[in-house]
Amino acid sequence: VIAEVDDACLSWLCDTDTDRLARMARRYAGAQATTRAEDLFADPDLDAILIATPVFSHFSLAQQSLQAGKHTFVEKPLAGSSQEAELLLAQAEADGLVLMCGHTFLYSPPVRTVKQILERGELGDLQFISSSRVNLGLHQSDVSVLWDLAPHDFSILHHWLGELPVAVRASGRDIAIPGIHDVAFVTMRYGSGLLANLEMSWLAPSKLRRTVLVGSEKMLVYEDGAPEAIRIYDKGVVHDDPETFGEYQLSYRTGDVISPRIDSSEPLALEIGDFVRSVRSGGPPAGHGELCLDVVRLIEAAEESLTGDGAEICPTADSPVVV
Amino acid sequence: VIAEVDDACLSWLCDTDTDRLARMARRYAGAQATTRAEDLFADPDLDAILIATPVFSHFSLAQQSLQAGKHTFVEKPLAGSSQEAELLLAQAEADGLVLMCGHTFLYSPPVRTVKQILERGELGDLQFISSSRVNLGLHQSDVSVLWDLAPHDFSILHHWLGELPVAVRASGRDIAIPGIHDVAFVTMRYGSGLLANLEMSWLAPSKLRRTVLVGSEKMLVYEDGAPEAIRIYDKGVVHDDPETFGEYQLSYRTGDVISPRIDSSEPLALEIGDFVRSVRSGGPPAGHGELCLDVVRLIEAAEESLTGDGAEICPTADSPVVV
Amino acid sequence: VIAEVDDACLSWLCDTDTDRLARMARRYAGAQATTRAEDLFADPDLDAILIATPVFSHFSLAQQSLQAGKHTFVEKPLAGSSQEAELLLAQAEADGLVLMCGHTFLYSPPVRTVKQILERGELGDLQFISSSRVNLGLHQSDVSVLWDLAPHDFSILHHWLGELPVAVRASGRDIAIPGIHDVAFVTMRYGSGLLANLEMSWLAPSKLRRTVLVGSEKMLVYEDGAPEAIRIYDKGVVHDDPETFGEYQLSYRTGDVISPRIDSSEPLALEIGDFVRSVRSGGPPAGHGELCLDVVRLIEAAEESLTGDGAEICPTADSPVVV
Amino acid sequence: VIAEVDDACLSWLCDTDTDRLARMARRYAGAQATTRAEDLFADPDLDAILIATPVFSHFSLAQQSLQAGKHTFVEKPLAGSSQEAELLLAQAEADGLVLMCGHTFLYSPPVRTVKQILERGELGDLQFISSSRVNLGLHQSDVSVLWDLAPHDFSILHHWLGELPVAVRASGRDIAIPGIHDVAFVTMRYGSGLLANLEMSWLAPSKLRRTVLVGSEKMLVYEDGAPEAIRIYDKGVVHDDPETFGEYQLSYRTGDVISPRIDSSEPLALEIGDFVRSVRSGGPPAGHGELCLDVVRLIEAAEESLTGDGAEICPTADSPVVV
Repeated sequence: VIAEVDDACLSWLCDTDTDRLARMARRYAGAQATTRAEDLFADPDLDAILIATPVFSHFSLAQQSLQAGKHTFVEKPLAGSSQEAELLLAQAEADGLVLMCGHTFLYSPPVRTVKQILERGELGDLQFISSSRVNLGLHQSDVSVLWDLAPHDFSILHHWLGELPVAVRASGRDIAIPGIHDVAFVTMRYGSGLLANLEMSWLAPSKLRRTVLVGSEKMLVYEDGAPEAIRIYDKGVVHDDPETFGEYQLSYRTGDVISPRIDSSEPLALEIGDFVRSVRSGGPPAGHGELCLDVVRLIEAAEESLTGDGAEICPTADSPVVV
Repeated sequence: VIAEVDDACLSWLCDTDTDRLARMARRYAGAQATTRAEDLFADPDLDAILIATPVFSHFSLAQQSLQAGKHTFVEKPLAGSSQEAELLLAQAEADGLVLMCGHTFLYSPPVRTVKQILERGELGDLQFISSSRVNLGLHQSDVSVLWDLAPHDFSILHHWLGELPVAVRASGRDIAIPGIHDVAFVTMRYGSGLLANLEMSWLAPSKLRRTVLVGSEKMLVYEDGAPEAIRIYDKGVVHDDPETFGEYQLSYRTGDVISPRIDSSEPLALEIGDFVRSVRSGGPPAGHGELCLDVVRLIEAAEESLTGDGAEICPTADSPVVV
Repeated sequence: VIAEVDDACLSWLCDTDTDRLARMARRYAGAQATTRAEDLFADPDLDAILIATPVFSHFSLAQQSLQAGKHTFVEKPLAGSSQEAELLLAQAEADGLVLMCGHTFLYSPPVRTVKQILERGELGDLQFISSSRVNLGLHQSDVSVLWDLAPHDFSILHHWLGELPVAVRASGRDIAIPGIHDVAFVTMRYGSGLLANLEMSWLAPSKLRRTVLVGSEKMLVYEDGAPEAIRIYDKGVVHDDPETFGEYQLSYRTGDVISPRIDSSEPLALEIGDFVRSVRSGGPPAGHGELCLDVVRLIEAAEESLTGDGAEICPTADSPVVV
Repeated sequence: VIAEVDDACLSWLCDTDTDRLARMARRYAGAQATTRAEDLFADPDLDAILIATPVFSHFSLAQQSLQAGKHTFVEKPLAGSSQEAELLLAQAEADGLVLMCGHTFLYSPPVRTVKQILERGELGDLQFISSSRVNLGLHQSDVSVLWDLAPHDFSILHHWLGELPVAVRASGRDIAIPGIHDVAFVTMRYGSGLLANLEMSWLAPSKLRRTVLVGSEKMLVYEDGAPEAIRIYDKGVVHDDPETFGEYQLSYRTGDVISPRIDSSEPLALEIGDFVRSVRSGGPPAGHGELCLDVVRLIEAAEESLTGDGAEICPTADSPVVV
């Protein structure tokens, strides 16, 4: 993607897998290839570095990159702990460098469309959210399905709701590899009373990335990759009468279903373009720093609940606390 | 349905709603109509009574019916508490009467086909189950979505697995009517390690009744009402090598997807036929008594967790105990 | 259905299959049962007769029914030839009797909704229609798939468009029973230039009843039995510029997709209700006579093309003429 | 794709659109860029040329390429007339050059799997085929939808069946651009009695590429791009008894539905790989020459019927003849 962004030039390729490096080098003949990240840190002509490595190497590599004075883009999640994420953000801010984390879904046209629908209040009060993000594999040998898939849901929900939940609870199972949870169910409660239930799994018969938002006025289904990524159901419960004598009279409203037209932009290109623009303009990508940190906080909280028998965790404190 | 069963004769219609009663009476001209259940209990020529009333009236009506010496069929769940369910079962056994609870899904051809697939071990070890049973409405004003929808899932899972979970946890929200939960997420753990997550809701944009079973050998999706109710995915994770030095080498196996042919029998007709046969033969429908009781125990346990901040409840004891 | 219509009383059941007759008699205990249609014609208290028999018996039975002074409802199609259909309509008109043909789809809520959408011009000019009405079976041993399934499509299209096509062409194959076509493709051209292609088959892997209407402004898909029976696609081709020098500049417009809310009424109940109202009021069901006749004319024309090597037939003349 | 094939080297980029050429040149820095095809013909070090241009330029460019002694790959269809296609094939054969036409679907794993299923007779005798290949756009200003989409269906059917139909008939409409048909329905009859109906359109609300094959034993649905590209339905009509006295007793068999596992290879890479192998080995890609020619013959026949009021055309003669 970088190779096709207008204002950027791909000058280095770095991979410890020499076969893969050779293949890339062949395709991108204009760039230098190396297996040593140090070569990039040492190149004075290099402005920015993109890091797409295992989660627990993010901190060290990003720290070195920032220390070398490079603007830095890190694959999601930003770091393997909220403490490390805070350190990176602080360092970038101190040095006036752009530090961006690859929450690509924030650039996804349907995610942005849902954000607009929420902002204009079309769904009414959000009441609950039910989400599935499942597939067969790819298992990672060092981190659970939470570190792999939850950054998507957590970043999307944070983008939509603008707040952290007050309580997170998770249950799951480590099936294929002992100690590595490959299926997890996460329940989150927000200050407004909103309840969210997320299913994440590397063990599913077919790929599904589907989020249902139930509001007091309408309901919305966002299914990534479907021909109609967003469907808005004009459905709901109506309280027919003022309740009298403790009796509730409900009826059900069913109106049209609308699939709004979605812009067909490529999220990754938008994201890299935003990074390049930030680097050129000197300013960080708007408002993402706190979100990236909160995503790591949420993963930590969910992971703590998952490995601690499902206790409810409050992720808002600086370090998560059992409530 | 009863009117069309071969060996039975519909002789009474009873409803406190006089309009509905008149409508039924018109259609079933051969039967007597009444608004008073006592008329049925008092009729010496009546062999059996079917009770389809609100949950919390099941116990009283079924008790009177049994006391009147009638074989009794009760809509699910059997009673509003496990204690009451136990009393009814004991009474029926003492008096040699058939007492059956309308867990119609146990007669559903796809549910029975899944049972056979499980019995011949085709899925391998069951690892987790993820289920959604959601729709828009109908809210009930006296019981939560658990009392309404969970009997389906609990009876199906009990039929398939033959055991109660060792721990049940539920979270949810009472959105339309204060105090009546209309959305619930239930997590259950079984002795084998099997994890099940069930979503139930009266607030959903479209009807979905879908259960995913992930086994060590294959995966299965059962979607009630779909053109192909069962789909078996020959998919799974393969451990390539004996693990060496703590490294796991996984790959993913993807084979055919098979939708077995499903018998098209009508579950309700099968169920009523089974009830009539039991009445005629004098024996109870095979093995359902304990299941009906266990379903009520599970609802109680889930309800307790739901209204008690998600604590994990063990439903196996005579009365559920917080663990 | 008749048994539940308010203003009608089911007084006779007639079937030459004695088993089926006995089953019906048991369910509708209030009605007399017979295997002889003459008994109905002879009953002076009987107002109206519904005929649901094989196609080629429609004419004879309906004629006798009208001659006996009974208002008459005939299953679709009205008769086995346009000549017979004309005779029946003339006879009913002469005797002031209601003669109605069971084109139930005209009472189907989605069909009516499409009619309204077309009437308000929402799709622009209709350009082509593509339809599939396929299933596995049921083969009829005396008539082709055209006599069985085409009445649905032909009556629906006539209802929507209000006109006959100017040319009909059909091709097909008689696979299971020699001489009985079980798959047919019908192409029709209308005076406006509109082109329609209909696929009908008793040999299909799964049931599909789907009609696509492409207009100059929007496109519409009507799929009977789907959760969203109608979907309106705000899509089309745009001529960017006035054509210059023979060059066309096209672009494609893609807007929202809307599934309008559809009334959930039962078509058969609406239809029978309409028949009963007509009988009571003395007037025929609005405007259906010509449509019923035109449907038979279209079947004749398509059948002639089908069995005559696909020649194009004009169905508008009194008797179809090869063009 | 060529850039990633192992045994080939991308040395020239040629496009008359200078913007697009610049973009390509930037991505493939190792290749020379030109707007003049003559530069490629003149390069003595160039072994092979790939031509992806408008249909009616195929002949001239391919002819020049062959004359320059280059192995030649032409986008489908091979040429704008069967006469031209024959000339090219003759020229390539005379000069010992590889001439390949880009019927990529012949390398598509599901198309190949269907071929194997047919070869082992799993469907029984093929009885009819119904296909839809529709989308919104892209209109071409110089050729009809037949020249654009029919090469796919015609090459696939030829690959599966190994024979030309004995009769082709087409109807359609030129809606967006006068003279350019953008919707076409093609009916083909084969010597075996097999009937095929193909719908092709640039004016459809959603993309669909679906072919249904009905055989005497089983039915198969191939839907390109669907999660399960092939579904085999073990369904059919059964003749219960030997027919007696002209009566047919049919019943319907419904068994499992199977979606065979499909290899996930990339068809274009396989195709280019095959071309490169042929060039290196000196032999032409197995058996495709006649198929490429037959596809052009079929398009010509269908186009003739389409523009000639739907007359039935026989495509097997050297030049198509009206029958």
